[in-house]
Amino acid sequence: MDYLASPHPFDQALRLQRLPDGHWQGHTSPAYANMVGPFGGMTAAQMLQPVLQDPLLLGDPVALTVNYATGVADGPFTIRARAARTNRSTQHWVMEMVQSDQSVITATAVTAARRETWGVDDEPLPDCPPPAACSAQRWSAPVAWFDCYEMRPVSGSLPISWDGSSQDSQTRLWVHDQPARALDFASLAAMSDVFYPRVWRRRATHTPAGTVSMTVYFHASRQQLQDTGTGYLLAQARAQAFRNGFFDQTAQLWNEAGLLLATTHQIVYYKS
Amino acid sequence: MDYLASPHPFDQALRLQRLPDGHWQGHTSPAYANMVGPFGGMTAAQMLQPVLQDPLLLGDPVALTVNYATGVADGPFTIRARAARTNRSTQHWVMEMVQSDQSVITATAVTAARRETWGVDDEPLPDCPPPAACSAQRWSAPVAWFDCYEMRPVSGSLPISWDGSSQDSQTRLWVHDQPARALDFASLAAMSDVFYPRVWRRRATHTPAGTVSMTVYFHASRQQLQDTGTGYLLAQARAQAFRNGFFDQTAQLWNEAGLLLATTHQIVYYKS
Repeated sequence: MDYLASPHPFDQALRLQRLPDGHWQGHTSPAYANMVGPFGGMTAAQMLQPVLQDPLLLGDPVALTVNYATGVADGPFTIRARAARTNRSTQHWVMEMVQSDQSVITATAVTAARRETWGVDDEPLPDCPPPAACSAQRWSAPVAWFDCYEMRPVSGSLPISWDGSSQDSQTRLWVHDQPARALDFASLAAMSDVFYPRVWRRRATHTPAGTVSMTVYFHASRQQLQDTGTGYLLAQARAQAFRNGFFDQTAQLWNEAGLLLATTHQIVYYKS
Repeated sequence: MDYLASPHPFDQALRLQRLPDGHWQGHTSPAYANMVGPFGGMTAAQMLQPVLQDPLLLGDPVALTVNYATGVADGPFTIRARAARTNRSTQHWVMEMVQSDQSVITATAVTAARRETWGVDDEPLPDCPPPAACSAQRWSAPVAWFDCYEMRPVSGSLPISWDGSSQDSQTRLWVHDQPARALDFASLAAMSDVFYPRVWRRRATHTPAGTVSMTVYFHASRQQLQDTGTGYLLAQARAQAFRNGFFDQTAQLWNEAGLLLATTHQIVYYKS
């Protein structure tokens, strides 16, 4: 992938410049703007990018944790990334995003040179209509990053009526980059954060909410991501507990062939 | 909790000494020894301990991620911990355990001053017999840390016959500290790692396995942990995917009253 040559807004957002001190300079992307600051999925992808670009990288991503310490301001940022430990087949990374000399994101990643082993998927692709049978979401919210994804809701869409009625917390949707872009580790990390806050679904009540920490476990190999290409992913999320200002989210992303590409978790702040 | 006065092995293992440079000196605990090196749950509790003991601590733990970069050697260790960001009601911590000038564990934590809000548990305590109706596990394995917990298996125990037969990956057990100790954030973090490797259950095959990264989301307040006291927790774990040397584990811990205290996730290396 030649990030410098690609005109895709996702690749443009991932453009980082290595500074003489070894840190990385980047800039938030207007295309991936959220209501305030950038889409958290794009920030996650940006945090992973120094790892993916480092000549010392061993293998491919296995785990990524991103802690959203505060709102990222629109504008330039610096990412510090270091391989804290390199083993024979695994590597442990520590990353931090800094703006105006203040820490705004902390993160860790594990990469590994994976070998073929016995394997099985125990969380099957849910029984749901294919993307072609689901209508594309028409968002009313004026948020730029929604336009960067084609989302085809299957179930658990945003409440139509914010009437405080009790519902389950589950959402399923088909999603891929818009315009089309072949899947890779960075875009899979970003899509792990594609869901609107579970508390909105669970209560049909609009309350301020924001991800505090997200973890992504990458089950797919580089080849399996390439094979997925520009196809849709089925993204499914639900919460397990809402308590005193924080709820969790547990989610899965499959490709159309039914391969579980990633499992991902969040803890999310909500106001009331 | 006066850690220095407590004779409980868990409290002894948590004893850290603050060094003049602000780092923390500790020592692995023979009581919590695993086959090689210490029990990962104890390491997780030790990584959280500098956060809990720091006079600058804001609130209580909400999220903890521990990356097991390499095996911790039996003996002394140093933990470096810093509050990367302190907001009005949340605080973001970065920790690292060092032995012989080498990084062996990386970790992050989020703490928060939590306010009462609307809440609900969406993952109910599974329907299972109470602790008194389940026999205590008699382990055959010569591993010290097993003796630090009373475990009463409900379902999904270690395979009796390692015959390679296919099973589901779920385990449920009642567990508490042995000798009895009132639950707190450190012991809840440790108990999040109480499960044997899912791949052993799923395949009834004994293959080397080890946790690479664990994340714990704390749903319980300090008061709810105190109310749980020395009662049993129901611990439930299962995997979602096994692929090319790594499987995930998604788990929940409830108290006997049915309150979901923590949800936790791991990515785990397995050899074959």
